Amino acid sequence: MPTILITNDDGISSPGIRILSRALKSLGDVYIVAPETEQSAVAHALTLHRPLKSEKTGKNTYYINGTPTDCVIIGVNKLLPSRPDIIVSGINNGGNLGDNVTYSGTVAAAIEGTLLGIPSIAVSLVTEYQVNSGPRRLFAGFQRAAECAKETVQKINNIGLPKDTLLNINVPFGKAIRGTKVTRQGKLVYDNGIQELSDPRGREYYWIGGGEPQWKKGGDTDLDAIYNDYISITPVHLDFTNYRALKYMEKNWKF
Amino acid sequence: MPTILITNDDGISSPGIRILSRALKSLGDVYIVAPETEQSAVAHALTLHRPLKSEKTGKNTYYINGTPTDCVIIGVNKLLPSRPDIIVSGINNGGNLGDNVTYSGTVAAAIEGTLLGIPSIAVSLVTEYQVNSGPRRLFAGFQRAAECAKETVQKINNIGLPKDTLLNINVPFGKAIRGTKVTRQGKLVYDNGIQELSDPRGREYYWIGGGEPQWKKGGDTDLDAIYNDYISITPVHLDFTNYRALKYMEKNWKF
Repeated sequence: MPTILITNDDGISSPGIRILSRALKSLGDVYIVAPETEQSAVAHALTLHRPLKSEKTGKNTYYINGTPTDCVIIGVNKLLPSRPDIIVSGINNGGNLGDNVTYSGTVAAAIEGTLLGIPSIAVSLVTEYQVNSGPRRLFAGFQRAAECAKETVQKINNIGLPKDTLLNINVPFGKAIRGTKVTRQGKLVYDNGIQELSDPRGREYYWIGGGEPQWKKGGDTDLDAIYNDYISITPVHLDFTNYRALKYMEKNWKF
Repeated sequence: MPTILITNDDGISSPGIRILSRALKSLGDVYIVAPETEQSAVAHALTLHRPLKSEKTGKNTYYINGTPTDCVIIGVNKLLPSRPDIIVSGINNGGNLGDNVTYSGTVAAAIEGTLLGIPSIAVSLVTEYQVNSGPRRLFAGFQRAAECAKETVQKINNIGLPKDTLLNINVPFGKAIRGTKVTRQGKLVYDNGIQELSDPRGREYYWIGGGEPQWKKGGDTDLDAIYNDYISITPVHLDFTNYRALKYMEKNWKF
């Protein structure tokens, strides 16, 4: 039986992680090591300047007062009885699409797993812009995403993952799913919605968020797949070098 | 005169940012928008769940109770009188090399600038593993890194940057510099040093850090450049798709 480490960025008490762990139990020994509190948009943050504590809350279940990345590091090195065979991060309540992956704590946990040489996937349910989605529909959405995670873990167990590569999986919400596409990361156009308000003492403050994402439609991106009711699976690697720019600069920047 | 936005992840009161801003003043209108407190290893974290406030502390100088990414968003959209022509993040006290860029708040600020379509660079002084480096040597190191940032900004003003690409610049510390190399991002081997200790009440806690980085030597990586006393400039893009894996999966993963 493979050992499966599950984490997320919505925190130990989110419904997504519980539904995910139930779905994966038939595939191996499941361990949960998740943040104590919600950690959305923490990206690949690492806690270096304060100590971390873990708390066991049930069989094979721990929370840590830190980020998803902290959870993977402490989970793999200190809490699990053996090195996990696979790491699954999710199910995030909200998509991680396009260059928004750079902000994502969900994807960051899979990045950390990949840096440690462990096959890793991030799974997100694209719940944004869904009006009147009650808890029952949300549960059904998580359920569907968990099934997708399970199938992916089975595929990885059977045929493996390309080296140094994680899978960023996004599952559409609330519509009939038309299938699965292997996609590239789309490019969002940022409008950076910022609310500017005043506090009770008249001091201005800002609140980031609120803009609707825009992107160039058409093409084989994750954003297009979701928009067209497909599950999107984007293989992500951690070499961020722009090799074309490297060649250009070597030629044209005189040092 | 171009408008230059300077930020960092070591916080508004770090020496690196002051030396950097002094060096860039002759090139344009310099604005500083930096985190109130140190934000090392926060990666591309974004503050969504609490309001942000800015405080003006001097001419064109602000701090924000947030991350480097928050500083770029609020600076560009709310504080600067016009859109900056270039964003410079640094000078970080410590290298941002190899896949450690995924953790870096310094690089994250340049990522945010790039997402906003503004040419952006991250500058770091590789101060790790330097025994007995007093404040005078540190100052000289920052000075040298600031000169390098200045030359790079001049080059960008003259010949531009490849699209959707930031520059991750690392400057060696404490030795004669042999030149500058355009490099690719190296691959570290992680040992994940974790200290396990007990608090005064006998409870275990963990402290991440302490391992020395290892990497495969030889080749055109940032790590090798620094190791051989060269300044390294790595062009970084934000499309993390592994295209080779994409093709492989389209062929071999049956959906």
